[in-house]
Amino acid sequence: MKRNVAILLAEGFEEGEVVVVADILRRLYVPVETLACAQDGLEVLSYHDMAIRADSRLTARSEETYGVVMMPGGPRGARALGADAPTVDFVRRHLEAGSLICPFCSAGAHVMAANGLLGRRRYTCSGDNHLQYADGEYVDAKLVRDGNILTGKGLGVAFEYAFAIATELGLGKEATEHAAHIYFDSWPIPIAE
Amino acid sequence: MKRNVAILLAEGFEEGEVVVVADILRRLYVPVETLACAQDGLEVLSYHDMAIRADSRLTARSEETYGVVMMPGGPRGARALGADAPTVDFVRRHLEAGSLICPFCSAGAHVMAANGLLGRRRYTCSGDNHLQYADGEYVDAKLVRDGNILTGKGLGVAFEYAFAIATELGLGKEATEHAAHIYFDSWPIPIAE
Repeated sequence: MKRNVAILLAEGFEEGEVVVVADILRRLYVPVETLACAQDGLEVLSYHDMAIRADSRLTARSEETYGVVMMPGGPRGARALGADAPTVDFVRRHLEAGSLICPFCSAGAHVMAANGLLGRRRYTCSGDNHLQYADGEYVDAKLVRDGNILTGKGLGVAFEYAFAIATELGLGKEATEHAAHIYFDSWPIPIAE
Repeated sequence: MKRNVAILLAEGFEEGEVVVVADILRRLYVPVETLACAQDGLEVLSYHDMAIRADSRLTARSEETYGVVMMPGGPRGARALGADAPTVDFVRRHLEAGSLICPFCSAGAHVMAANGLLGRRRYTCSGDNHLQYADGEYVDAKLVRDGNILTGKGLGVAFEYAFAIATELGLGKEATEHAAHIYFDSWPIPIAE
């Protein structure tokens, strides 16, 4: 599996979820690119008004195939991703290519379920967002993996989610060592299937 | 105590530490300003190459008094803060005014101890950075509070640190409720004194 990671940002994205995942993966020497979606410029404004400059625009990277595609929550950001045709096409293409698809927090509902991308697969998401969509089978767990879809419940498990992605990339030993290095006690935890 | 929070950013700052603290405090309706230090522009490049636009430059806010001054780690960023005279003056003025001073991770060593701002106070920091400085009394704990200085050990306790700051601001009940809301299980934890 390719180890490069695309993180999809649309205005309103949950900045803690994005930055923790990118930070931990880059600490483990995984190449991470943040891609601005559903807007023209590179600077994307987060859920709580932090302006972060993406590495590229998604439309400029639409020919690239990544090993991992991660989407954060933040209700407005996740809905914006799910309503943007180039973004949904990008996610669907990676899903079908077997990349690891990582919708976190409300993205499991507003990007994946909203576009019928889950089918009968099991997933988790934040709050009761799953109730809005018939697609997918909701599981109340912090982390859920079904095939090549890895979902996580929300901001408070962002570190666990980052370490779970690293583990899926074959970096389980490094993830566990790094958790200790940064004084993070809650890894490993179970991943529901 | 005033509830407004200044977070000091210099190039190389640990982005996860900054973003988790800002995100959690803003979720609790605490006003947070990020201030670019030791450089001319507003956009500050993080430890792992994320470009975040600060709300203001520190030099443009040098007359303001904040209730809380937070400084992240990231070894290069923390050293840059500690070597920048306007930043050190700003921290010293707030320390003497009784604001809550929050040096996180290596900032406890490279900003505070490096400038003799701890005196005999107890503090924690990441790794063995404390060995470089005679100032302060190092304690090996996740969170340490001595007077108006609240220190935290590093990235993996960023959520706990954010909730501890909120608690010092009188938002203990809200912090505990919000930890549950975001599925964060490790709060509250003890704060060493």
